[in-house]
Amino acid sequence: MCAMQKNTTPCYYSEYLDLTRFLDAQNPVSGQYQEEEAHDEMLFIIVHQAYELWFKQILHELRSIIDIFNEDSVDEKYHGKIIQRLDRIIKIQKVLNDQITILETMTPLDFLDFRDYLIPASGFQSIQFKEIEILLGLTMKYRINFDKKSFYNRLNDKDRKYLLNLEEQPNLFNLIESWLERMPFLERKNFSFVQAYQSALDQMVTRDLEIVKHVDYLSEDEREFQINDLKNTRAGFDALFEQKVYDKLQSEGKLRMSRKSILGAIFINLYRDEPAFQQPYHILKKLTEVDELFTQWRHRHTVMVHRMIGAKIGTGGSSGHDYLSKTTQNNRFFRELFNLSTYLIPRSELPQLPEELERDMGFSV
Amino acid sequence: MCAMQKNTTPCYYSEYLDLTRFLDAQNPVSGQYQEEEAHDEMLFIIVHQAYELWFKQILHELRSIIDIFNEDSVDEKYHGKIIQRLDRIIKIQKVLNDQITILETMTPLDFLDFRDYLIPASGFQSIQFKEIEILLGLTMKYRINFDKKSFYNRLNDKDRKYLLNLEEQPNLFNLIESWLERMPFLERKNFSFVQAYQSALDQMVTRDLEIVKHVDYLSEDEREFQINDLKNTRAGFDALFEQKVYDKLQSEGKLRMSRKSILGAIFINLYRDEPAFQQPYHILKKLTEVDELFTQWRHRHTVMVHRMIGAKIGTGGSSGHDYLSKTTQNNRFFRELFNLSTYLIPRSELPQLPEELERDMGFSV
Amino acid sequence: MCAMQKNTTPCYYSEYLDLTRFLDAQNPVSGQYQEEEAHDEMLFIIVHQAYELWFKQILHELRSIIDIFNEDSVDEKYHGKIIQRLDRIIKIQKVLNDQITILETMTPLDFLDFRDYLIPASGFQSIQFKEIEILLGLTMKYRINFDKKSFYNRLNDKDRKYLLNLEEQPNLFNLIESWLERMPFLERKNFSFVQAYQSALDQMVTRDLEIVKHVDYLSEDEREFQINDLKNTRAGFDALFEQKVYDKLQSEGKLRMSRKSILGAIFINLYRDEPAFQQPYHILKKLTEVDELFTQWRHRHTVMVHRMIGAKIGTGGSSGHDYLSKTTQNNRFFRELFNLSTYLIPRSELPQLPEELERDMGFSV
Amino acid sequence: MCAMQKNTTPCYYSEYLDLTRFLDAQNPVSGQYQEEEAHDEMLFIIVHQAYELWFKQILHELRSIIDIFNEDSVDEKYHGKIIQRLDRIIKIQKVLNDQITILETMTPLDFLDFRDYLIPASGFQSIQFKEIEILLGLTMKYRINFDKKSFYNRLNDKDRKYLLNLEEQPNLFNLIESWLERMPFLERKNFSFVQAYQSALDQMVTRDLEIVKHVDYLSEDEREFQINDLKNTRAGFDALFEQKVYDKLQSEGKLRMSRKSILGAIFINLYRDEPAFQQPYHILKKLTEVDELFTQWRHRHTVMVHRMIGAKIGTGGSSGHDYLSKTTQNNRFFRELFNLSTYLIPRSELPQLPEELERDMGFSV
Repeated sequence: MCAMQKNTTPCYYSEYLDLTRFLDAQNPVSGQYQEEEAHDEMLFIIVHQAYELWFKQILHELRSIIDIFNEDSVDEKYHGKIIQRLDRIIKIQKVLNDQITILETMTPLDFLDFRDYLIPASGFQSIQFKEIEILLGLTMKYRINFDKKSFYNRLNDKDRKYLLNLEEQPNLFNLIESWLERMPFLERKNFSFVQAYQSALDQMVTRDLEIVKHVDYLSEDEREFQINDLKNTRAGFDALFEQKVYDKLQSEGKLRMSRKSILGAIFINLYRDEPAFQQPYHILKKLTEVDELFTQWRHRHTVMVHRMIGAKIGTGGSSGHDYLSKTTQNNRFFRELFNLSTYLIPRSELPQLPEELERDMGFSV
Repeated sequence: MCAMQKNTTPCYYSEYLDLTRFLDAQNPVSGQYQEEEAHDEMLFIIVHQAYELWFKQILHELRSIIDIFNEDSVDEKYHGKIIQRLDRIIKIQKVLNDQITILETMTPLDFLDFRDYLIPASGFQSIQFKEIEILLGLTMKYRINFDKKSFYNRLNDKDRKYLLNLEEQPNLFNLIESWLERMPFLERKNFSFVQAYQSALDQMVTRDLEIVKHVDYLSEDEREFQINDLKNTRAGFDALFEQKVYDKLQSEGKLRMSRKSILGAIFINLYRDEPAFQQPYHILKKLTEVDELFTQWRHRHTVMVHRMIGAKIGTGGSSGHDYLSKTTQNNRFFRELFNLSTYLIPRSELPQLPEELERDMGFSV
Repeated sequence: MCAMQKNTTPCYYSEYLDLTRFLDAQNPVSGQYQEEEAHDEMLFIIVHQAYELWFKQILHELRSIIDIFNEDSVDEKYHGKIIQRLDRIIKIQKVLNDQITILETMTPLDFLDFRDYLIPASGFQSIQFKEIEILLGLTMKYRINFDKKSFYNRLNDKDRKYLLNLEEQPNLFNLIESWLERMPFLERKNFSFVQAYQSALDQMVTRDLEIVKHVDYLSEDEREFQINDLKNTRAGFDALFEQKVYDKLQSEGKLRMSRKSILGAIFINLYRDEPAFQQPYHILKKLTEVDELFTQWRHRHTVMVHRMIGAKIGTGGSSGHDYLSKTTQNNRFFRELFNLSTYLIPRSELPQLPEELERDMGFSV
Repeated sequence: MCAMQKNTTPCYYSEYLDLTRFLDAQNPVSGQYQEEEAHDEMLFIIVHQAYELWFKQILHELRSIIDIFNEDSVDEKYHGKIIQRLDRIIKIQKVLNDQITILETMTPLDFLDFRDYLIPASGFQSIQFKEIEILLGLTMKYRINFDKKSFYNRLNDKDRKYLLNLEEQPNLFNLIESWLERMPFLERKNFSFVQAYQSALDQMVTRDLEIVKHVDYLSEDEREFQINDLKNTRAGFDALFEQKVYDKLQSEGKLRMSRKSILGAIFINLYRDEPAFQQPYHILKKLTEVDELFTQWRHRHTVMVHRMIGAKIGTGGSSGHDYLSKTTQNNRFFRELFNLSTYLIPRSELPQLPEELERDMGFSV
């Protein structure tokens, strides 16, 4: 449509954007069933189309990031690009969250003017959103029950098959896991990060326990509570150091990411100032932000749906609020990264890296 | 300090704002206990002070709104002022929510550099925030257990007494309740809103039930689920029409606002286009927004604290995350307003108001 | 496509939204001219399509508001609806402004990868945006020169004609002007707002002048500057009271809105607490906000374009930055409302309204 | 105040934050001069104090960044920290911008209730804001005339001296300039970036000129306009390659940053994917963002002041709007970085770096 400079046909804005077709795709149905079209149905359509448009862009970025990680090793030259594209996804997510404020200008009473015509369609049926979830790593196995049944049952065959096939492809969760496992500095001839970290950690937990046992501003109840809490914390750490403990937690669904990759992520977080880790650290940070913003989106969406339909059945024929409330809690992708601070100890107690290792983490000149 | 125009001493910006004192109140303590002050402690102090500053402004607005409502009748002349001030609170709340993004630039590792010196102080101890909660109507009786014990036990006597005394004063929840109960148009000689509404409602629920029973795209499981859902919905409505049902739900803590005031709020929502209801409708809407933004704030705060401290004990010596997670769910002030759409029916099925009533809801000229 | 409940065909989300067509309209061209498609061209297309989608919604709201005002008198029952829809436009505008942050993730270097293929298309050619401007009241006569020539010359005949025809239809500026002129309380048997206001004003300006002449903290330069400033202020007021002065300013393009409608707007602002004025006041406020947000959008857009293309020629073949910089300053729709505070005097000096008038501005009961 | 863990005195939230003093510093004056305190004066004080609080935090970050750059060479280990702290400043600036929405809930009429008592104090007199400007590099020499006279004249001696002394200290502009000049890869034995770039550039400009001369969709006016534009662009580039041209532009105040440092910044932008440049690239990007957000803040502030006071004299006794309008345009700190895209050419035309150089820009392992 649009022409190269050397060509004689200049590019025309509305043709380049295919606006004739694009702006013809908003067609309210309420006018077919009642005297007057419900004024707000247009908003309902447009806000959902805007979501789909941005989902398409997120998928465009996500696929390009997956392509970069889907190699035996990731050249550092691509770190900047990965961060830029994750950042773009984040910026889009923020706009998605803000878009809810637009939908909120439609009151429950306005929605009632056309809600019945949409049954059982609902925002939960966005194929592209499921694609995003799958590409990020939320495969069927990790979905909550409601999600498995309700969503997939209601899709037509073509859509369902498409999504199920997608699960066979590499997803970002798995690729990040492998990338972290390959982290080159974890084990060296004369240095094992895991061992060094475990001993530093033990010193710290022991000390904290002493304090809680002896400070006098705690009531006995609170002291007991905190001692238990510390012991639980310690138990959590055990998962890092003992494969058996890790395996048990993983089999219970409490951990997903491999032990080695969690250790890689911790290492990067603790030594994020080393030149070789500055960009990997940002990659992990951006991933957590992507995750968090989807959680925020689900949360705000839940509240909005609740405010819109109250305790009645949702447009999807189910109690939308309950559903969303559960997914908000459970559909986090990179849970281990979100919880990473559980495993951090203060900088002042960090093991000193061997000089040779530090040198290797810097630039050649 | 600052002088009237007629005076010879002009007003000096930094004196007017008392900046010498104001900017002398940020004093990190980490420098006293370790070689170098933790760089991010300043941020921690300033972000919390910024919260307190805005809390003070919220209280300033809240008290003025309470004063307006704390009269036998509220002159319509004040409606604009009430809305303006609620709107100001909302704008402040949005900034409070955004401020979290600033605190998020402090990483868990940075926080570990000075976290130990603050034990057991924590953001949960803001007296002003509790004041806001109490003035909005969250008195002790409605707090979750954790909140009752943990927060109040840790206050000093003076602060605790101050807050407990505050509970005796009129709060916005109670005043709004009375204001809604006094709504002048609910009962007229020839028109009872409650009766008219109940009969309109019954028609609608009956119809919806028919549809769910006969549409063929539902599996039997889903059909049953939805029939139950509709029956529950209906049961919820019963609370509006049968005092006994209402009383039971209230005694179980499922409803707080009086039956009459809920009916008043529904009436306003349904007939919000009548001149006399346009401003009251906005007042209710703003109240819900204030409520929602505090919920959002608690939610984002929870996530931030979780990201900061993981599963470890919070600065308050308790599992901050658990605590906040519970308050996020339960400390909503105007729950009945938030759930109001449960009780709305489509405009097309609304009872027609008597002509004389409509006239009374308009302007004199 | 989507079916009524009674019907047997349920509504399918992706069909309801026409997603097959909608999501097929994003077609980058760079892949046709170089080995690899420029990754960021998709973003460029999608961000502009998202603008167009929201422009369509703004037009939907704008037209419905124009329909309401396009009557001999506007029933107060519609005030709530007008405010709700203006508010929706505002919420959309905020998202439009935020969307710029997404486009900003494309760096100048990324843009250079496909920029040449778009020449001379540019964002300045959005027909829908021009429609919005025209419906708000920015007809050809009020555009800056660059806008007149450059934009319209580059359109094809059909588009140009469409826009020129649109100028013949009623626009919001003119309708608001008439609505303000019809304001019923300006002139009464025993009260003329204009006269009362003029005399109150004269007292105030005289007093301010005295102060500036005698305070001793001003240098002579500053004093002179301020005295001139006050005199200019006064001259500005003259336009309100003397038709000749007003006519001169209007003929010079410094004022657009009629003298009577400006007085109406002032009256509403000063007595906004009277029940009859609370909603009209909000309508004026929202209009100013719409105006301001378009100004912000143009400003941020300018800066973004500048950052993207530097001092080079824009995609539209012109110095985009210069162009936008000018429109930012000059394309405000309701300039008189924006400047209204120029004409306000403190509440303490407001003329007291006659009792009978106050009564008429309240509710019947 | 707050105690170490080993200590017996626990830390008390309100003492740690010095709230007694902090929350005692908001003292409206209007109550002294009129019967009732103006309700909104509290807001006016608090919003300005909130600004000052955040200014203090910005200064805290800025000084620490200056300390890092104020060395003969900047260790790459600090890059992450610099970016984190610039990012924090950015997050604060966004909140500062959002805070304006709070102040906007005060209407012009509300402001008139106490405005006269503040004369001639004004927000333009914030010492801390001037400190920020000076530390970023806006020394007296680069201020617009109005700024020089009006602001400094109105300060008391102590404040004026303090700010003038500050100008003698190293500022970020100068330090960034030196850092860019030291960029190690600009000149190598067998490679001069400047020469390679100039020849690549000449090819491109020549080609663009050919296109503009021959495409047939341009009117003769537009063609001439664009040819001139291209020639101006070229002339701009001359400043990069010919010291004389550069010197002339600098002496005319059109360029500030040294030629060598501009070249360094261009180099970093073009080869930002090389590991050694990824972080420096982000540093430059963040600096531009800081700059842009202050510009946005000034712009929104201008509009807000205009809306508040109209064409009348500002609280500072001057036409605040004119003043701000000028500073908005002219007080950009890193103008050359903002304009950098002027000097960029498409990736496809970039000179290939020598292999040895590429290797040196990677990690040692």
